[in-house]
Amino acid sequence: MNNFLDLADLDRNEIRSLLALATGLERSPQPQALAGRVLGLVFMNPSLRTLASFQAGMARLGGNSFVISTGSSWQLEYRDGVPMTGEAAEHIREAIPVLASYADVIGVRAFAKGQTLEEDLSEPVFRALSELCPVPLINMESATNHPCQALGDWKTLDDLEVPGAGGKFVLSWANHPKALPLAVPSAVVHMAALRGMDVTVLRPEGFALPEPIMARAREAAAASGGRVGETDDRQAAMAGAQVLYAKSWGCTSAYGDADQDAALRARYADWTVAEDWFRPAAADCYFMHCLPVRREVVVAGDVLEGPRSRVIPQARNRMFAQMAVLHRLLSRSNPT
Amino acid sequence: MNNFLDLADLDRNEIRSLLALATGLERSPQPQALAGRVLGLVFMNPSLRTLASFQAGMARLGGNSFVISTGSSWQLEYRDGVPMTGEAAEHIREAIPVLASYADVIGVRAFAKGQTLEEDLSEPVFRALSELCPVPLINMESATNHPCQALGDWKTLDDLEVPGAGGKFVLSWANHPKALPLAVPSAVVHMAALRGMDVTVLRPEGFALPEPIMARAREAAAASGGRVGETDDRQAAMAGAQVLYAKSWGCTSAYGDADQDAALRARYADWTVAEDWFRPAAADCYFMHCLPVRREVVVAGDVLEGPRSRVIPQARNRMFAQMAVLHRLLSRSNPT
Amino acid sequence: MNNFLDLADLDRNEIRSLLALATGLERSPQPQALAGRVLGLVFMNPSLRTLASFQAGMARLGGNSFVISTGSSWQLEYRDGVPMTGEAAEHIREAIPVLASYADVIGVRAFAKGQTLEEDLSEPVFRALSELCPVPLINMESATNHPCQALGDWKTLDDLEVPGAGGKFVLSWANHPKALPLAVPSAVVHMAALRGMDVTVLRPEGFALPEPIMARAREAAAASGGRVGETDDRQAAMAGAQVLYAKSWGCTSAYGDADQDAALRARYADWTVAEDWFRPAAADCYFMHCLPVRREVVVAGDVLEGPRSRVIPQARNRMFAQMAVLHRLLSRSNPT
Repeated sequence: MNNFLDLADLDRNEIRSLLALATGLERSPQPQALAGRVLGLVFMNPSLRTLASFQAGMARLGGNSFVISTGSSWQLEYRDGVPMTGEAAEHIREAIPVLASYADVIGVRAFAKGQTLEEDLSEPVFRALSELCPVPLINMESATNHPCQALGDWKTLDDLEVPGAGGKFVLSWANHPKALPLAVPSAVVHMAALRGMDVTVLRPEGFALPEPIMARAREAAAASGGRVGETDDRQAAMAGAQVLYAKSWGCTSAYGDADQDAALRARYADWTVAEDWFRPAAADCYFMHCLPVRREVVVAGDVLEGPRSRVIPQARNRMFAQMAVLHRLLSRSNPT
Repeated sequence: MNNFLDLADLDRNEIRSLLALATGLERSPQPQALAGRVLGLVFMNPSLRTLASFQAGMARLGGNSFVISTGSSWQLEYRDGVPMTGEAAEHIREAIPVLASYADVIGVRAFAKGQTLEEDLSEPVFRALSELCPVPLINMESATNHPCQALGDWKTLDDLEVPGAGGKFVLSWANHPKALPLAVPSAVVHMAALRGMDVTVLRPEGFALPEPIMARAREAAAASGGRVGETDDRQAAMAGAQVLYAKSWGCTSAYGDADQDAALRARYADWTVAEDWFRPAAADCYFMHCLPVRREVVVAGDVLEGPRSRVIPQARNRMFAQMAVLHRLLSRSNPT
Repeated sequence: MNNFLDLADLDRNEIRSLLALATGLERSPQPQALAGRVLGLVFMNPSLRTLASFQAGMARLGGNSFVISTGSSWQLEYRDGVPMTGEAAEHIREAIPVLASYADVIGVRAFAKGQTLEEDLSEPVFRALSELCPVPLINMESATNHPCQALGDWKTLDDLEVPGAGGKFVLSWANHPKALPLAVPSAVVHMAALRGMDVTVLRPEGFALPEPIMARAREAAAASGGRVGETDDRQAAMAGAQVLYAKSWGCTSAYGDADQDAALRARYADWTVAEDWFRPAAADCYFMHCLPVRREVVVAGDVLEGPRSRVIPQARNRMFAQMAVLHRLLSRSNPT
């Protein structure tokens, strides 16, 4: 493993091995494993959980990290061949190799531009980054992917002993005041499919996941004995569900059109996950969400704090999953 | 000791033991004591000294830390049951458990709201935090408390060999362009009383410390053989004083009323500590201040840099006091 | 060595010894050399490369660091005797001793004010800092100096086996939309002269380096057998050049006058380094730049990414140079 850009780059055995490493590190700390090694964290968009979990995880392995945030005081140019007479004082073609020259591994977060779906699905920033970065690169959330979230979520499902083969997993769109990126739903539907689960994407009209994302999930399901479907029928989706994973995302039928997005989502203001959603589900159906979550908008407070909710251990598993990735990428005994 | 929220939670023997540990760590570094342990620092208000002293102190014990600052890019909701349709994308009820899941100990700074005295004295944020945080919690300055400052100041008084029993300690209000919080004066008057000192709060009309703060200090004095009084008579207050601790705070007779505060403080623009304040004092009377301090406003430059001033070692003792707290909370041999 | 403020404070043997240490640390990591030691980084101006390279370098030596950025939330007063009634809540006379009390070494970045040349050349901030700071102080870029850049660049020239005695070095002004500080050109012309090189400063009318900077470089050249000249004739300057070091800086004939600077630099918009600049040069003439660099403005993309360019290893050498400085200042076996 030379990079960690997309869970789809790994086969199921590699993922199982990473998850075993994550669980091993959770149970038996290795506070010297990465002594003297340096992780560079580059945030082109703000972060709380990802920053804290990467810095803490690296520290628990004996390593160290530095944080660079782009923004008002430091803007980067991405385009090729453009005379840099504007605000951006540095091109990504220098910035990334330089930061990589100080670090043993680099993590980058760069959100979707949210203008055209085709552009965001083609992941222009991460494709460029992976060519520019001479050290291992970790995707800390890109335009349409979030493999660290997916790996942590897989571990949470394992910890909960939700069956891989045939376990019934519902990914549901939820109410939210803003159009959010596709990174988490895209990564999660693929992860659940690759885990061999029976996956249903529950979403209202206008919020179907883009076909390339669904196709990728179906392909993973085909290889793993899983299944992927979609519906706007909550009763049907939730029948027998063992996990409800809630997440909001932007309108996909008018991607990048803020007015139409707002008009459309206003119709679905009642898509706030509530206890009655679970009536058709398995009795002990779990509730998951990647956080941050808006209470009484995405989900009712009593569900979020009730016995179904696993959002805190789910967030904690981000750290162990990422420690496994760092350990695998950097450990000197890494067979690669 | 499971948390460090208020010096009043500890008895004098526990405090003496912490101070002995602080002095021990000052003299004999323990650069491996907290290897592999992680401190999460959450600043809901900006910090310089506290950030630097906690990060440096944790590093000197072999541990590591991460910093999260709330503000424009990350706003938290504190209220219960409110639909989160506004700016805040995360509720404190998730944020704190998640950050705690990455760390072995959490430090939080959250200033007073400064609207009503009753609310600030009841410390609503820290009461909520201490219920939400499953790992040890450190108060890095709350609405009306600052136990790290108080512990460091106690160490400074010990280092200077100012007597506990009967040592004459004056806490004086001072001029300042803004209404500052009550956290430091509240913590310091209590600390000096608990140390058994003869404490006088010197302040002009309208700036008396609130009665609950004075009552708490009198209670500590009663248990320790000290005394707590207050006056607006500088000559009387300074007679025989061994320590003058200067600090500004907001008007308490019209708490939260900016106009009345400004009108009132304009009358006391001459409350700038100057060398002539010390005429009635003991010859070697020390000058203390928690910093940052405005020169020629709070205190004259010649006092601040003169032989009485102990503000730099006082600031340095913040680090050793906090190292003792971290060591006590985290050391594996901690008898609790 | 007690501080690292100016390369001119060291003699050539001391510099060679530092460079040997830098190369030694590049080849053989010393991940425990500075265990338990703390570096305080104070940025009065924003930083990317310097922050990352110092934090990474300190971590690779087993030490730790904290970062303080001044700005909107924390403004410092520099003037003496001024009543501090404005925005600045803390004077540098407290801030620096306090931060130094938490750290074993302090690095500070403080750019030129850019108002009068005399003031910037006299380095008022760093002169004040070096008197205030009781622990070793590192100049991370001051008004008219950047010794860390100079030391790293010297190492790059050594790595490239560019001859010291007589190697032909051209420092060229380049096009840029803004008036940039003199720190890098000032440090680099002095470094190349002290290395004994044949140095030419190539710049258009109005952009000559100030006479005190040129005089300092000539003095270094005289002591080292080098030579320093200046011209606006590109053909003459580049004849036989082994290194072209490009950098923009502000107009010096009307220093601090934004309008005149803009009018003057508009005339030299064609000073973008291009491949044809190298025609009179040695066949394998290298291209250097301290970064960040604006493509197609300062330099053409094909030069920057072509075989002449050494900008990435040059940036990487910042880290090794700084590690040597930290090691020399802090190592317990330091003979001083």
